[in-house]
Amino acid sequence: MTHTPEALDASALDAADPLGAYRSRFLGADDPAIPAYLDGNSLGRPVATLPEAFSSFITEQWGGRLIRGWDESWLELPTRLGDRLGRAVLGAAPGQTVVADSTTVSLYKLLRTALHARPDRHEIVIDRGNFPTDRFVVEGVAAETGARIRWIETEQGSGATLADAAAVIGDATAVVVLSQVAYRSGYLADVPGITALAHEHGALVLWDLCHSVASVPIELDTWGVDLATGCTYKYLNGGPGSPAFLYVSSALLADAGARQPIWGWMGDRDPFAMADGYVPAEGIRRFVSGTPPVVGMIAMQEMLGLIEEVGIKAIRTKSLALTDFAIALVDERLAPLGVVLSTPREHEMRGSHVTIDHPAFAGMMGELWARGVIPDFRAPTGIRLGLSPLSTSFAEVEVTVEEIRGLLAASVA
Amino acid sequence: MTHTPEALDASALDAADPLGAYRSRFLGADDPAIPAYLDGNSLGRPVATLPEAFSSFITEQWGGRLIRGWDESWLELPTRLGDRLGRAVLGAAPGQTVVADSTTVSLYKLLRTALHARPDRHEIVIDRGNFPTDRFVVEGVAAETGARIRWIETEQGSGATLADAAAVIGDATAVVVLSQVAYRSGYLADVPGITALAHEHGALVLWDLCHSVASVPIELDTWGVDLATGCTYKYLNGGPGSPAFLYVSSALLADAGARQPIWGWMGDRDPFAMADGYVPAEGIRRFVSGTPPVVGMIAMQEMLGLIEEVGIKAIRTKSLALTDFAIALVDERLAPLGVVLSTPREHEMRGSHVTIDHPAFAGMMGELWARGVIPDFRAPTGIRLGLSPLSTSFAEVEVTVEEIRGLLAASVA
Repeated sequence: MTHTPEALDASALDAADPLGAYRSRFLGADDPAIPAYLDGNSLGRPVATLPEAFSSFITEQWGGRLIRGWDESWLELPTRLGDRLGRAVLGAAPGQTVVADSTTVSLYKLLRTALHARPDRHEIVIDRGNFPTDRFVVEGVAAETGARIRWIETEQGSGATLADAAAVIGDATAVVVLSQVAYRSGYLADVPGITALAHEHGALVLWDLCHSVASVPIELDTWGVDLATGCTYKYLNGGPGSPAFLYVSSALLADAGARQPIWGWMGDRDPFAMADGYVPAEGIRRFVSGTPPVVGMIAMQEMLGLIEEVGIKAIRTKSLALTDFAIALVDERLAPLGVVLSTPREHEMRGSHVTIDHPAFAGMMGELWARGVIPDFRAPTGIRLGLSPLSTSFAEVEVTVEEIRGLLAASVA
Repeated sequence: MTHTPEALDASALDAADPLGAYRSRFLGADDPAIPAYLDGNSLGRPVATLPEAFSSFITEQWGGRLIRGWDESWLELPTRLGDRLGRAVLGAAPGQTVVADSTTVSLYKLLRTALHARPDRHEIVIDRGNFPTDRFVVEGVAAETGARIRWIETEQGSGATLADAAAVIGDATAVVVLSQVAYRSGYLADVPGITALAHEHGALVLWDLCHSVASVPIELDTWGVDLATGCTYKYLNGGPGSPAFLYVSSALLADAGARQPIWGWMGDRDPFAMADGYVPAEGIRRFVSGTPPVVGMIAMQEMLGLIEEVGIKAIRTKSLALTDFAIALVDERLAPLGVVLSTPREHEMRGSHVTIDHPAFAGMMGELWARGVIPDFRAPTGIRLGLSPLSTSFAEVEVTVEEIRGLLAASVA
């Protein structure tokens, strides 16, 4: 189902928005040089408390506690923050999530883990439209292990349906690698349906949550997901390049065959024994390899505080209101100029960004950005309107659509 | 050769120290609660400009440029910062170094690269005394590839001599994995000698520079090193868990067989084409996998500024003066109480930390730390006095030795 707002009145929608006040909790939200930032789905804005959080971290924790900080709190940060993400945005009970490494490295570890846990199977299922790093990791792992890739032939960035998946998943499938929200179209996949289908065939699932986490409801435990990972710099506002989270279900953790390939001191049972021979830690800790990236984990904690205040349900409600509004504006003001909506209209098939396509968009991005109107572009013809529920206003959506309309009209004239 | 200071007078040595003024460039150096911090070899102090650097990064770069920051500077940061490290502290010409991932993940990538580049060889040489994460990565890679580990049987943390290496390296050796400075003893290995020996046998070398970089001279290009990696949170003061650097020689980069296993979008020839099929970037960029950890790279840039001002030669001179002083104090005041020096006395065999052993040390650490006298402990009986040339004073060394003497005398009495 889809909803069209009664009137396309951004001011009224902002005034009535129960989460409207949260916009002031982000830095730069009222910067006159940036009238509209619609790329929070790629890099979330900094939370306003960050300068103080970093200053106090540097002075009091790092500078004041020095090496003692490791024993006092930092060593446990990957699992403590993982548990907190599990509770707030992943639907994951404690002990299954850590924060560490990049999404790419996490994908590599989890994919190798899946193949290790299904030694009698040799096929990896992934959709052709998945984000490049997911596909590249799969290609690399296939090249090194001899696994065969079974491609779901979707359009670039469009996402795979249950039927698409059913046509490819079979009894030789070791693991299915898909994204909950497609990076280009914003398509929201049927995670529980595809997960159940994979399990019927004895396969594992590895869900990439980069473009969904903290903007749509996720219930990893309830859905029976085996493996998942995702970015923290999009809707979790962790800052450029902040580390990824990585989830392994308790059931799979109990399987001694589920072992990741990058054996490091922080995944050892007793890192400071400095003993002979790697012995993996019990539980999720064995998925950590190197020293935890503590500085990179500061910003997402501030954002998590806001998310915990609001709750994912209210965040999703706002997200849908924003995407409904964007779609209605596109229908009214851009469709007549030949702009095509590439995002599903149905709520249950839509994440938190709206993608529109037009051949003239590639030539317009420089001018848009120069005006401080900042969506992002995906080749060859797509503009993504990324709507970050706690920091994006309805006014920003309207400003962006209006600027695009003006530039398009001028280019056609 | 070794040098004993003429008089064990910390005040005079500090007063005459040409780098003494640099101490004030670090936060907390005059914190009365911490009279001596001798663990900068494990976690360097924050540079004094950091709160301002982070605040300006958050407000102006992240908050002000938002997603545009990637195109404007962040995408190139791994290679730009790598080149800068190459020039300032690694003796590496541009185009061979990147900053990314943890040291453990870097070791994994480089070790797999080495095996890939030597497909007809199946032995990995490593010393038993190497840092745990190096040994664990080697064990993991051996388990997955079937490579055989040839151990150099050194004491834990003692480091391997040229003779030790010569006894094990042979014509089946694919790669030799050693540390320039041994994490426990501070032993400084003969990098050019062992590298030449490995090359005579057709093997590659992978040097771990964690405990040496920015405290001792390094000439990777001149020495013909093939592969290297190291931490940035020790003498490069990058903050807890800051990302590692990774070096691959131009010669090895020219070898198409030298390929790392974690294929990600940032190592692709054209990340934003989002095209089918991974095509590794030319040169060192193909060793990057995921999105660069930009926030984690801020602090080390401030420290690099100081290092570039001073130069590695003056840093090494101060380091040797500090370790000379520490050894002389240990000889005079702790040896009579049964304390054993575990660090080589010869300058050319010594890094920037001094390790001493005594059975009573394990029981003394809590009290030392409670007094704000902070060296670190390595089981079973070692205290490491880590002397970070730009931030450690001679007075801190004396305070630490005196506190240890007092506690030891009391425990014996």
